[in-house]
Amino acid sequence: MELKEIAAELVAGCREGRERANLDRLYSQDAVSVEAADQGNGREVRGLAAIHAKHEWWESENEMTGVTVSDPMPHGDDRFAVIFEMEGRDKASGESFAMREVGIYHVADGKIVREEFFYGM
Amino acid sequence: MELKEIAAELVAGCREGRERANLDRLYSQDAVSVEAADQGNGREVRGLAAIHAKHEWWESENEMTGVTVSDPMPHGDDRFAVIFEMEGRDKASGESFAMREVGIYHVADGKIVREEFFYGM
Repeated sequence: MELKEIAAELVAGCREGRERANLDRLYSQDAVSVEAADQGNGREVRGLAAIHAKHEWWESENEMTGVTVSDPMPHGDDRFAVIFEMEGRDKASGESFAMREVGIYHVADGKIVREEFFYGM
Repeated sequence: MELKEIAAELVAGCREGRERANLDRLYSQDAVSVEAADQGNGREVRGLAAIHAKHEWWESENEMTGVTVSDPMPHGDDRFAVIFEMEGRDKASGESFAMREVGIYHVADGKIVREEFFYGM
């Protein structure tokens, strides 16, 4: 798939709750995922299993009540940005939160090889 | 300046119409500016003079009627993202437009050394 198709499908998957299935379809086996800051476990994980584990952790901690996903914004033929606007509740405390974050996705050989997240602290 | 200060000042400058003065204060002499796509003159320019020229071209072509600039969103200690939501009018045609774009700024040795823009086509 080309960048445009990958980007469109990633966004569609996020909007339709298919993001976990899309990891297996769109991501390279040894893709890297990088957080904005180290919150105790390092910023970077490598490999699809570790990226699935990040999703599982996030889902176990948070109940999402609203997510808006922008259209993909390309930069050249190997990267695209997506803006996520999220509202949710921390399951442990019950506290609500709202956050906005930018994901930058790097594509090589028809797969997502790196995702990087930017957000305020 | 550290990334956090540079990012805060870049955003303040964009909100207060001081972005041109900030080029000289915050950017490296040989900073690189990269557009999302080649619209006829290549995607990349290098050097402060060329980046000023991009601003002059943009201001000569467009009258901005509304610009919202997000808070900076850091990624590690060498990059940050800013979301720009812009409304304006093409001076030649009089047509209005609205666009959203993500800027990724790279910082090294206390200066912005690279800016990259992501937007839909």
